[in-house]
Amino acid sequence: MLKHFEMNKAEDKDALKEEIKQLRAVLLGQQQALLEAKLPVIVLIEGWSAAGKGSLIKELISEIDPRFYSVVSPAITPEGQARYPFLYPYMKAIPQNGKITFMDSGWMDAAVQNFLRHEITKEEYRRRIRQVNEFERQLRDGGYLVLKIFLHIEKEEQFKRLQALAEAPETEWRVTQDDLWQHREYRRFREAYEEFMEKTGDLLPWHILDGSRRKSAVRDAMRLLTDEIGRGLSQGRYVGEPFEEAFPLIEMPLLEDVDLSQTIDDKKYKKELKKLQARLSALHNVIYRKKIPVILCYEGWDAAGKGGNIRRVAYPLDPRGFDVYPIASPLPHELNRQYLWRFWTRLPRTGHICIFDRTWYGRVMVERLEGFCSEKDWQRAYNEINEFERMLTDWGAVVLKFWIHIDQDTQLARFTERQNTPEKQWKITDEDWRNREKWPQYEEAVNEMLQKTSTENAPWTIIESNDKKYARIQTLKIIVEALEKACDDHFRQVVE
Amino acid sequence: MLKHFEMNKAEDKDALKEEIKQLRAVLLGQQQALLEAKLPVIVLIEGWSAAGKGSLIKELISEIDPRFYSVVSPAITPEGQARYPFLYPYMKAIPQNGKITFMDSGWMDAAVQNFLRHEITKEEYRRRIRQVNEFERQLRDGGYLVLKIFLHIEKEEQFKRLQALAEAPETEWRVTQDDLWQHREYRRFREAYEEFMEKTGDLLPWHILDGSRRKSAVRDAMRLLTDEIGRGLSQGRYVGEPFEEAFPLIEMPLLEDVDLSQTIDDKKYKKELKKLQARLSALHNVIYRKKIPVILCYEGWDAAGKGGNIRRVAYPLDPRGFDVYPIASPLPHELNRQYLWRFWTRLPRTGHICIFDRTWYGRVMVERLEGFCSEKDWQRAYNEINEFERMLTDWGAVVLKFWIHIDQDTQLARFTERQNTPEKQWKITDEDWRNREKWPQYEEAVNEMLQKTSTENAPWTIIESNDKKYARIQTLKIIVEALEKACDDHFRQVVE
Repeated sequence: MLKHFEMNKAEDKDALKEEIKQLRAVLLGQQQALLEAKLPVIVLIEGWSAAGKGSLIKELISEIDPRFYSVVSPAITPEGQARYPFLYPYMKAIPQNGKITFMDSGWMDAAVQNFLRHEITKEEYRRRIRQVNEFERQLRDGGYLVLKIFLHIEKEEQFKRLQALAEAPETEWRVTQDDLWQHREYRRFREAYEEFMEKTGDLLPWHILDGSRRKSAVRDAMRLLTDEIGRGLSQGRYVGEPFEEAFPLIEMPLLEDVDLSQTIDDKKYKKELKKLQARLSALHNVIYRKKIPVILCYEGWDAAGKGGNIRRVAYPLDPRGFDVYPIASPLPHELNRQYLWRFWTRLPRTGHICIFDRTWYGRVMVERLEGFCSEKDWQRAYNEINEFERMLTDWGAVVLKFWIHIDQDTQLARFTERQNTPEKQWKITDEDWRNREKWPQYEEAVNEMLQKTSTENAPWTIIESNDKKYARIQTLKIIVEALEKACDDHFRQVVE
Repeated sequence: MLKHFEMNKAEDKDALKEEIKQLRAVLLGQQQALLEAKLPVIVLIEGWSAAGKGSLIKELISEIDPRFYSVVSPAITPEGQARYPFLYPYMKAIPQNGKITFMDSGWMDAAVQNFLRHEITKEEYRRRIRQVNEFERQLRDGGYLVLKIFLHIEKEEQFKRLQALAEAPETEWRVTQDDLWQHREYRRFREAYEEFMEKTGDLLPWHILDGSRRKSAVRDAMRLLTDEIGRGLSQGRYVGEPFEEAFPLIEMPLLEDVDLSQTIDDKKYKKELKKLQARLSALHNVIYRKKIPVILCYEGWDAAGKGGNIRRVAYPLDPRGFDVYPIASPLPHELNRQYLWRFWTRLPRTGHICIFDRTWYGRVMVERLEGFCSEKDWQRAYNEINEFERMLTDWGAVVLKFWIHIDQDTQLARFTERQNTPEKQWKITDEDWRNREKWPQYEEAVNEMLQKTSTENAPWTIIESNDKKYARIQTLKIIVEALEKACDDHFRQVVE
């Protein structure tokens, strides 16, 4: 990588200028084609401090219509983002279909800085490299064009630039302690960048550009960008293939084998409910103080009792520390991004609880059955989702997933009751009846989902809900147990 | 207010429980009606520390379907929000039509705390009270139901509760220095709350509830909420009347009197452009360091040259410090909120520049002419917008508004050229031609807008753009001048 990289030679100024002008015209012509082809583009610009990342972006965007791009600097976003997973700010910033996002520094610099500062362990650093590879693959497979550029300057050149900045009163403030530290530690940084690029360059290559010749770098970046877009336009939107990956799966029963006959009597229900809710309330305090994020996922048949179940779980929680997200069809700006984007952007802060009423598993259920995505898309999704959830639990989150289960007769009885009760009629729609007709197809999809995505770190539990009260108690028990364990584990980690 | 408030008497427990149960059923029934009537509801819960705000909200939401409400605690949102205007977190949190937002503490507590801590001047405090009144009126006039509750406890009761919290190991951490400070300063707080409520209670009344009797408070709050929703449902969505308010207006010429014959020769253009861009680039540094927010608004005829103008302004800026927002038709979740919401949520952080390519003035142009809002709505908007912009400049923002102006012949020539140039055809749509036919109506609307909203703090400038290059130089000059002045003023303020 860096060691084999040859710096640019001096070039004829006028010829360079002319070439840049031509490439700009190409880019200008591509922007409308991008929109029509609905291709989203991410341009990641990494590189040394003072290598000229900002100026390079300035040149790249100078002729593009503002409707087509945005520039983000995830590194300087508010402190609040420290309470989200490592890749959160980058995922948050991905463009809609047809648009370009330029990132001024990104996941490489963040990971390398954290590592060299000893803010994360070697193990966590390796995990982040793995997460980056997964993240980039998921974007590519979801149709994103991702261009990764590293703007390189040698140590002497960096010295000259930092010195020039520091000597002019109006730019002196731009030279930060971090910049000086990087300069002193140039060799360690170089090795770390090198290693990071080697470990993340297989799928989507890194392009090293010579930052010491500004105009040449602009030309080189424009060539890369227009080539990449041109390639994307001629080949059409890429749809990734399903892939194999080994996850520690928990064996799950088939839905037809689940015994739905359990019930609970009213007196016992009330007693248990009170006890479990009190325990959950106390645990919420601990979770909050230990800054453990908690993600509770509800899926299940229509009329299975998800809503009432969620209310019983939410009731003892401090309203300042949790959110419930009912998930319906995606809005246009959500539909126009990678399918996990709308869930990423709803993740809880550390110490907070969020409850998803329906989830990202829509991908392998309704989207699969209604043809809202291609077969490759939903087949790929099992492992993409496993990766996503592993990232969440690696971050420290407790992730629990509930399939609220009833049989067809119970559903029919509840549908009919809703239909016949004026204040409940809004809960039942034609779509519910249509979905009911597809019970066997859904059952097959749910079984496959449960088999393929119940991991040790983020397990599914089938909740028998023919008796709703029984279901509530079961769910609360599992949540309370998992949170108790998480608080203990966390405590143990801190003590050790 | 507080001094005439009588605490609740002890009530029969079972009767209370029964009443709450009934009110819950009413609320449950109302939620669907709210959705159908598209009425948004804001429930603001203010009150003393340890008065039980969180528990009260918990009871209010316990039976509501999570699809219908959200709970926000603007006070504990990330530090990043400190870089936005005072009312930003509350505006950001307003619900969509048909939904309820519960706010756990809000604008009163924030203003009072800042004031008592001497973090803001008396003058700024008075301004905030005015802004709150404007904000509440704008919400009401935009169809929001706003319920304001103050949960009251006496000093002794607060002492008891804080002590109980502090003595139990699992809740001890909940008692903060702020709580203890409020308790010590109970009298000063009481006077301040009292004054704040008096000054903000004319339009939308404050409801004081007795927090020392929890169940009674729940019942009282539920009564208020169901009454308010009931009133809203029976009267239908409220549309506010236009109102008079004196703003320091700058006299503006009529569009027909603008001389569009100015031009600039190419050599002079290049020289001036370079000089002004260099100056703007340097000023961006100063703006950033002085944390001055800058908001540049572009409006103008189709094909007037807004895009090219914006690009010349953006080019010298550091891409990390500015955003361009092209404003198109609102998305569903934007359309379902007060019309200024989508602009509030795009405000720049302090020290950042944002450029709006079309703006909130759509309300008094396209929305007026296409009937997307009622006559009262757009007539009210002139002053609502003046208030909004005064809030921005009070916050310290530089707000500049440009009407990019051409005549009809020039527009026709540019439309025709777009139509005949393959790579520009995407820029011209049937809608552009349709809008062109309404030139006289638009001209009338634009003239009225310029007359009514060119304030001293946020002035309009008509930019003659028959010669686009001339227009760019004019715009840059005005921006550079205004920023120089802002930096000087700021400097003077700091020195004084």
